[in-house]
Amino acid sequence: MVIVMEQGATEAQVQKVIEALVEAGYDVHRSSGVQHTVLGAVGTPHVVADPRSIEMFPGVREVIKISEPYKLVGRTFKHDDTIVDLGGVLVGGPEVVVMAGPCSVETREQVGAIGQTVSASGARVLRGGAFKPRTSPYSFQGHGETALRWMRETADESGLAVVSEVMDPRQIEMMLRYVDCLQVGARNMQNFDLLKELGRTRKAVLLKRGLSATIEEWLLSAEYILAGGNMQVVLCERGIRTFENATRNTLDLSAIPVVKKRSHLPIVVDPSHGTGRRDKVIPMARAAVAAGADGLLIEVHNDPDHALSDGAQSLFPEQFDTLMGELRVIAPVLGRSLPLARVPAQR
Amino acid sequence: MVIVMEQGATEAQVQKVIEALVEAGYDVHRSSGVQHTVLGAVGTPHVVADPRSIEMFPGVREVIKISEPYKLVGRTFKHDDTIVDLGGVLVGGPEVVVMAGPCSVETREQVGAIGQTVSASGARVLRGGAFKPRTSPYSFQGHGETALRWMRETADESGLAVVSEVMDPRQIEMMLRYVDCLQVGARNMQNFDLLKELGRTRKAVLLKRGLSATIEEWLLSAEYILAGGNMQVVLCERGIRTFENATRNTLDLSAIPVVKKRSHLPIVVDPSHGTGRRDKVIPMARAAVAAGADGLLIEVHNDPDHALSDGAQSLFPEQFDTLMGELRVIAPVLGRSLPLARVPAQR
Amino acid sequence: MVIVMEQGATEAQVQKVIEALVEAGYDVHRSSGVQHTVLGAVGTPHVVADPRSIEMFPGVREVIKISEPYKLVGRTFKHDDTIVDLGGVLVGGPEVVVMAGPCSVETREQVGAIGQTVSASGARVLRGGAFKPRTSPYSFQGHGETALRWMRETADESGLAVVSEVMDPRQIEMMLRYVDCLQVGARNMQNFDLLKELGRTRKAVLLKRGLSATIEEWLLSAEYILAGGNMQVVLCERGIRTFENATRNTLDLSAIPVVKKRSHLPIVVDPSHGTGRRDKVIPMARAAVAAGADGLLIEVHNDPDHALSDGAQSLFPEQFDTLMGELRVIAPVLGRSLPLARVPAQR
Amino acid sequence: MVIVMEQGATEAQVQKVIEALVEAGYDVHRSSGVQHTVLGAVGTPHVVADPRSIEMFPGVREVIKISEPYKLVGRTFKHDDTIVDLGGVLVGGPEVVVMAGPCSVETREQVGAIGQTVSASGARVLRGGAFKPRTSPYSFQGHGETALRWMRETADESGLAVVSEVMDPRQIEMMLRYVDCLQVGARNMQNFDLLKELGRTRKAVLLKRGLSATIEEWLLSAEYILAGGNMQVVLCERGIRTFENATRNTLDLSAIPVVKKRSHLPIVVDPSHGTGRRDKVIPMARAAVAAGADGLLIEVHNDPDHALSDGAQSLFPEQFDTLMGELRVIAPVLGRSLPLARVPAQR
Repeated sequence: MVIVMEQGATEAQVQKVIEALVEAGYDVHRSSGVQHTVLGAVGTPHVVADPRSIEMFPGVREVIKISEPYKLVGRTFKHDDTIVDLGGVLVGGPEVVVMAGPCSVETREQVGAIGQTVSASGARVLRGGAFKPRTSPYSFQGHGETALRWMRETADESGLAVVSEVMDPRQIEMMLRYVDCLQVGARNMQNFDLLKELGRTRKAVLLKRGLSATIEEWLLSAEYILAGGNMQVVLCERGIRTFENATRNTLDLSAIPVVKKRSHLPIVVDPSHGTGRRDKVIPMARAAVAAGADGLLIEVHNDPDHALSDGAQSLFPEQFDTLMGELRVIAPVLGRSLPLARVPAQR
Repeated sequence: MVIVMEQGATEAQVQKVIEALVEAGYDVHRSSGVQHTVLGAVGTPHVVADPRSIEMFPGVREVIKISEPYKLVGRTFKHDDTIVDLGGVLVGGPEVVVMAGPCSVETREQVGAIGQTVSASGARVLRGGAFKPRTSPYSFQGHGETALRWMRETADESGLAVVSEVMDPRQIEMMLRYVDCLQVGARNMQNFDLLKELGRTRKAVLLKRGLSATIEEWLLSAEYILAGGNMQVVLCERGIRTFENATRNTLDLSAIPVVKKRSHLPIVVDPSHGTGRRDKVIPMARAAVAAGADGLLIEVHNDPDHALSDGAQSLFPEQFDTLMGELRVIAPVLGRSLPLARVPAQR
Repeated sequence: MVIVMEQGATEAQVQKVIEALVEAGYDVHRSSGVQHTVLGAVGTPHVVADPRSIEMFPGVREVIKISEPYKLVGRTFKHDDTIVDLGGVLVGGPEVVVMAGPCSVETREQVGAIGQTVSASGARVLRGGAFKPRTSPYSFQGHGETALRWMRETADESGLAVVSEVMDPRQIEMMLRYVDCLQVGARNMQNFDLLKELGRTRKAVLLKRGLSATIEEWLLSAEYILAGGNMQVVLCERGIRTFENATRNTLDLSAIPVVKKRSHLPIVVDPSHGTGRRDKVIPMARAAVAAGADGLLIEVHNDPDHALSDGAQSLFPEQFDTLMGELRVIAPVLGRSLPLARVPAQR
Repeated sequence: MVIVMEQGATEAQVQKVIEALVEAGYDVHRSSGVQHTVLGAVGTPHVVADPRSIEMFPGVREVIKISEPYKLVGRTFKHDDTIVDLGGVLVGGPEVVVMAGPCSVETREQVGAIGQTVSASGARVLRGGAFKPRTSPYSFQGHGETALRWMRETADESGLAVVSEVMDPRQIEMMLRYVDCLQVGARNMQNFDLLKELGRTRKAVLLKRGLSATIEEWLLSAEYILAGGNMQVVLCERGIRTFENATRNTLDLSAIPVVKKRSHLPIVVDPSHGTGRRDKVIPMARAAVAAGADGLLIEVHNDPDHALSDGAQSLFPEQFDTLMGELRVIAPVLGRSLPLARVPAQR
């Protein structure tokens, strides 16, 4: 913590701040310049001072926190990249991992067909919603455990791993039977009781960034999970809320290099929720890989005839296949690769 | 839903959109102008179309939702103001209700002293944190049930009602024994499983606005509680996240007249979290009442000697008392009042 | 400037940073704690270092600027409140000054009638647009010099001062003949050539806050004017751009106490542009005065029959008169007053 | 314009709105559904109604504008991509055009050396600041015309075109002698008098997006230039202001596909100002090209020894050269190319 005193601060005011900090257990270093006295408070105090409280002392102009409050997620704690094992699929290694599937799981047939097609195009993980967080209580809330069973069966058929969203600590135990990775949605990024419970499991967690969460807050939410003993966390950028309304959210791709510098955890990008429009998903998916993402989360939809009730942000299978081909050209620029497409038996 | 076609849209494109809407069960009305064809889709369809999906049809330029998705919280459903009974204290009626107390409940003595002082100044509800949502897992997480017991005892001594935050559906049952109102924090505004459980209780709920929630999303979260059968909801504006960092958040006081027009639910304001700085709390508390708030949620702190670990946003008892006096002058401009201060026996 | 080194920074890295700072003319103070080495760079260097450049040195984690870059607008430079003389009307003194008038000046009759009515209700300054900054090139751009002449005549008849917006340095000379105060609109807050020219005049300037300007940037724009030798600047909060779209902008009333603490310049509030809706203007005008504003800028409209082409944010004369009465009750809470309404001859 | 009436709106209220619209010259179409009456107002009225004014009519719930107010910049007006000729360099065609150079032009030697190196790496345009918009009046404001002369000489030596920022209408005439493209900075995006003057020239204009400008507002600012008769406009995304502070701004790459759909004008990206940090520039430059940008604006810096006073966002020549090589791999995925690097004589 660095304390900047007002230009006209008296010696008595400076002493009062120093005393309070020393009493709390800080080592205090003082720099007096022509304009300002600056105090550096370091060490491991027995009472952690709230910077805003120090700011209330007379004569103090500004207080700046310096210790990033996260530890386990930081590069200082662990220098090398973490590779997360998602049911055998490695996220954060040389391969760009694509997770694809429907927004909501609707029927066994739907998820089965989508699973086959995305697997053939080179996806490694099946994504799909069984419990859906909906802004309105009157919207469809998901098929629950049934949907999870369908996803598991599909994944086993198609050689995929499974990721699906958990919304309530009471769902975790049941979900562990079906999924390889528990997804925490943007709205629950600071649902701390949920994060604590996930820290007690040993299953991979995909933690989406909250709509208005700074990167620091996002890393601190990951810290909740790591602090519980579960190191298997994948971060997922999915757009932040800004004034711009031409897209659903503003996909913050610069979060990729920022996270890569601060943390050892892998980061993937969800351009489907980030943009909310199919024709924006493809360019932003390419851009995410070009910016260094470890993977993508993409909504794919199999049945154009029912587009009315389906997401406008879902790609058609042939669009997805084309995109995967484009990514195979871009990834090597960053020293990475994507799995080859399998030629499907009868297409 | 209103669909605006591109200027050059063909008749076949227009027909394709109309067919899809009719198939879904909409009544479709068509307006053809010189520049644009506009389709109005009304009625109660059997499949609710996602506006963004319609936007993907060729020839469509823009799709605009028109039905506000909330029902029970709207003025159309219930014209008259709702008055929420918070353990005998009426919020939303002629009295401006002030809820005051410490950020965290620390000791029985602390909360007892603060309860007495805020009650003497005219507060009607004791607020205090027993479970604390903390950005970092290493910060103090609250004294839990013990803190709730201390709050209940204090409130009974001082003639106050009790409000405290709930973070997890599994805490509700226990908390109902101690509190008159369950508070949902900003971070949990879209924790839908928690909202559903609160809809099943018959206890008053104070629902804070999420940091990046639009007013519409906030009302939809309230709708979750009302849809469960619990009509006793108080909304609480506590600041939104913007680019400005001179204050902790930007208190959006214009939310008060907006909510008052759209909804019958009462709205209170929390200037302590909204600004994060003691010297900003007082002017913003006055402003909130001048703008028409039904009440305030204010942090009050009794012990200036331990300011180091306490909130910089807490008022000292004498500041709180002065503020209450100022509010008694402002409230009558809006046809409202605050309770008189009791002259304490030995101050 | 405070430089925080990485936890694992080497001594060589620390020395490299110190050398660069010393070479630039800084006094450098070093604090070494258990976790971090912190460097304080103070003094008056001959080369001002860009904090972001220092951040690029190996081993540096964070660089924090400490010297607020504004001087003349700060409380450190001038402790007492500045009172701006706006054609005989004093802004920043004990009186809350209300500036009222039409959005655009349309006819001599219109502005004449509005001038009389707002003056009778207690306004002291006539506001009105002669040059209009319009988002679209196809919107009405104002009546220019003719409108200014009408405003001057009206103001002289009704005992008011005149404020109107300047958009281009080439307009200043002509405008000085008509107005008592030159307004800089939000879109031009960082039109630095315009600000420099205004610094060369000795006329009062009303500087609106930019839509996405931090309070620090706003004060720095005021600094441009003061640095030119013109100390007569009134700041005007008029709403910032956020994600919320229920109001046109988000009126940031907490800017009032923030500005009051940092600067000696007076601050007024424009709730008309800040909210964009007539029914929100009245509560926010009351709130602004309750929060400590030195004045208000309010659009008033005289002719309800042509509401179609006029601003939805303009008050009707009787609404304005009622509002002024309410403000006369609120202002004394802050030790201030408003002028009494004159009983008009024939109303 | 589409007007949505309240659920309980009376027939008289509906008629009043229709009358006002018809009087203004609109064709009005009415749709009455079970819940809402919806009015579509189309045609070319003689009085353009302000949607917010209509919203003030009793019984009206919401008014939605449908005609995008821009014309000449839209795809409806001109379907095919516009290719802007920037002193012989074509922006918007098959080549990805890179504009590179120093933030500020400091000396003839500096700009000469940078010009040579960026040209050798494949840049086609020299960028550099002669007039600098600075937040503080005490910061370096640029070398003015001298800097422009140096840039012109450098460009002629190295086979480059020149782009530089104009801040004031009074600078245009002089600048036309030196530059191939006049840049409008983010802070001047809505300096309408400047835009009008640029519309009267026949020189290419590079229009940066304002920090808090929506894409629609940005296109409307371009419309000011086109409406003056100058069709040679290049748009430039350079980051928007959000709550996130890990980067200087948030680069909104999704603006690329949005602009491409709505407008025929080319769009380039400035990752240097968009991120403000050298190590973020490279990934975001790659991402911009992958997302479909027609070009890039990149700061390159030649002298690492004076990093203290130079921009932390400038690339070193060898970083720039490596980046250009990466872009040559990515561009073909979108059917585009970059010029080859020339092998410099003595490097």
